[in-house]
Amino acid sequence: MRQRSVGEAALVERIEAHAAIGAIEGGGVCRIALTDADREGRDRLVAWMRQLDLDVSIDRIGNIFGVRRGKADLSPVMTGSHIDTVATGGRYDGNYGVMAGLEVVRWLNERGIVTHRPLVVAAFTNEEGVRFQPDMMGSLVHAGGLALQRALDTRGTDGARLGDELARIGYAGEMACGSIVPHAFVELHIEQGPVMEAEGVQIGAVENLQGISWQEFTITGQSNHAGTTPMRLRRDAGYCAAAISVFVRELALRYGGSQVATVGAMDLHPNLINVIPARATVSVDLRNTDEATLQRAERELAAFVEKLADAQSVRIDTRRLVRFEPVVFDERLVRVIERASQARGHATRRMTSGAGHDAQMMARVCPSAMVFVPSALGISHNPREHTAPADLLRGADVLLDVLLALAEEA
Amino acid sequence: MRQRSVGEAALVERIEAHAAIGAIEGGGVCRIALTDADREGRDRLVAWMRQLDLDVSIDRIGNIFGVRRGKADLSPVMTGSHIDTVATGGRYDGNYGVMAGLEVVRWLNERGIVTHRPLVVAAFTNEEGVRFQPDMMGSLVHAGGLALQRALDTRGTDGARLGDELARIGYAGEMACGSIVPHAFVELHIEQGPVMEAEGVQIGAVENLQGISWQEFTITGQSNHAGTTPMRLRRDAGYCAAAISVFVRELALRYGGSQVATVGAMDLHPNLINVIPARATVSVDLRNTDEATLQRAERELAAFVEKLADAQSVRIDTRRLVRFEPVVFDERLVRVIERASQARGHATRRMTSGAGHDAQMMARVCPSAMVFVPSALGISHNPREHTAPADLLRGADVLLDVLLALAEEA
Repeated sequence: MRQRSVGEAALVERIEAHAAIGAIEGGGVCRIALTDADREGRDRLVAWMRQLDLDVSIDRIGNIFGVRRGKADLSPVMTGSHIDTVATGGRYDGNYGVMAGLEVVRWLNERGIVTHRPLVVAAFTNEEGVRFQPDMMGSLVHAGGLALQRALDTRGTDGARLGDELARIGYAGEMACGSIVPHAFVELHIEQGPVMEAEGVQIGAVENLQGISWQEFTITGQSNHAGTTPMRLRRDAGYCAAAISVFVRELALRYGGSQVATVGAMDLHPNLINVIPARATVSVDLRNTDEATLQRAERELAAFVEKLADAQSVRIDTRRLVRFEPVVFDERLVRVIERASQARGHATRRMTSGAGHDAQMMARVCPSAMVFVPSALGISHNPREHTAPADLLRGADVLLDVLLALAEEA
Repeated sequence: MRQRSVGEAALVERIEAHAAIGAIEGGGVCRIALTDADREGRDRLVAWMRQLDLDVSIDRIGNIFGVRRGKADLSPVMTGSHIDTVATGGRYDGNYGVMAGLEVVRWLNERGIVTHRPLVVAAFTNEEGVRFQPDMMGSLVHAGGLALQRALDTRGTDGARLGDELARIGYAGEMACGSIVPHAFVELHIEQGPVMEAEGVQIGAVENLQGISWQEFTITGQSNHAGTTPMRLRRDAGYCAAAISVFVRELALRYGGSQVATVGAMDLHPNLINVIPARATVSVDLRNTDEATLQRAERELAAFVEKLADAQSVRIDTRRLVRFEPVVFDERLVRVIERASQARGHATRRMTSGAGHDAQMMARVCPSAMVFVPSALGISHNPREHTAPADLLRGADVLLDVLLALAEEA
């Protein structure tokens, strides 16, 4: 069993070859969904699928499925992820899971193994949501969470209509969305966080995914001279923005567990050293694996903001930007992943995904789970995104074992 | 005595006429020091001084003095301020004090009054320090606090040499700097803060001027994913910037008295909602009338920043930008102002100036003090800067009384 491996060289070579499409300075990739680079990436993927004798189907939102027939005409076991990237992305986010899926197929082909259930390697359209919102769009449409027509009518940041762009690059497929309902879905992905590296974990069996709450607060106070305005007469929008930042951090530390809170963006106006800010915008990103706790955090923040506005005589407008409920992955599947990894002797840990993934959408229609491998320094969405070849291989081999096990299920 | 008044119409007319030079959208003025607009403003001022029979002297840093002879050959009583503005300035900051000085002279001329001591109306070069640093330059050179040659060699934000620009606009005068040592200096100015309006005060007798400490902190942490990075593994530069902002506000409230603290400018990088900021810069403006207390505030802040850097595993670099010690004005002069105002029945209060003024430099060479009038909403350095004509008149009439009283002193 220990020799069963897709092979490091082949895996790394395929990842590198695909990362060359849309390659940017510093070893990164820019392959934003439905651009020419995305088309080129898709063309290469489809060509590889065909070389591997997979039946390629494209659905009407452009999701690509490479199907490997099984002995029985049962619902297939699906793996995959996405091949689009952010503007200054790395080589692994998304692409790794798709390329590893192909390597599993290659391994099976070379051995002439036919599994009981069919296997499918999927690449979902527009997971990153850079040009067209929302993100995870292809898997969301597949899972029935977003109407196809609404998705096709989405306007991009450049004004383009998604449906038109999909047709332009030749990926407005014929298959009805959601046609393939898998027996199980397993997504292999880099962690995009620092936990595994910091704790020496080699394989993460992802058991849940954090709910996400994004809000933006716009604070309107009064601009005044920093020297001549006594503290008691101030309506300092900048202070209020800072107070919100400090509050959410303290909230996350107080809650503990999976709760995280981030103020990533803050803008003061006029942003001058000796002028009390008249206006400030501040973003708050709250995440928790437990919906009730996430709601409690949101309520606490809302109460704090209301009190703050009152106390500081400012107006604070709240805009909800994004809200996803937490996702709990399939316990049985998580256990299959965990055992497969342990059987190979890897340092294994149950993980929570802090980022969104296609698997969270697939979880709406079939038992789903994820396999994580470490990300160096937790750096992601960045050309410096890196996972060591040995880690890439461990993940792909665990995926191989898991897919084989699931594909033999009755 | 109550009828003794320079007259509202004449005063407002002169202010309006001068504000037309360099006028900008919204009723403001752009007359940055040593530009063509500044030259035009100076030319108008000098012409008006000559119309009023003043002897005009220009010193080597370009300060303009209009001298009205007295009966005795004694040191003169000086008033004045500056006529340069910030890029989007108002009509009153600086200009008001100079124009009111001219109106006092006009009033004396019309009545044929010759005072015991000479009177001087001064306009100091480059008070705002927009193009050439430091600010309050002309009065600083006059007071011997900055060597003439160093001032002339100053390079502007546009690379121009101050001495060259001064010659270009025709105001590199012949008089040695500091030649005129006044018996007393009284500067009439708008408050540029909201206190007088908020408290219904009509005339402020300015007894001191806050010391100023400007620092900029650059925080270097680690950029990471907002969802996947546990709170304990973060090196969040944005949180540290916010913590500094909240700390200095709490410090100012705790100290009370004249202590103010402002974070006017803050920048996060990359400033994205779901990315922990890798870097942040934050400015801190601390002011107090007491030097020892200001130093204590600086020490407390430095200790907080050091502890914060340690606790959050970030690097924090401190840059000192500006540092002025507090100034205490002449007590006897302040009392003269206070009494003159009270004698006219005005709601009078002793004030602290939170902003820097030419009077703080003059205080190094002669008894000095200031008269404040209210600024609507405290708005200044802004085209919307406004002081009601009745307030402008009250200030000018108090100046008239104070100058007359001081000019009769033996």
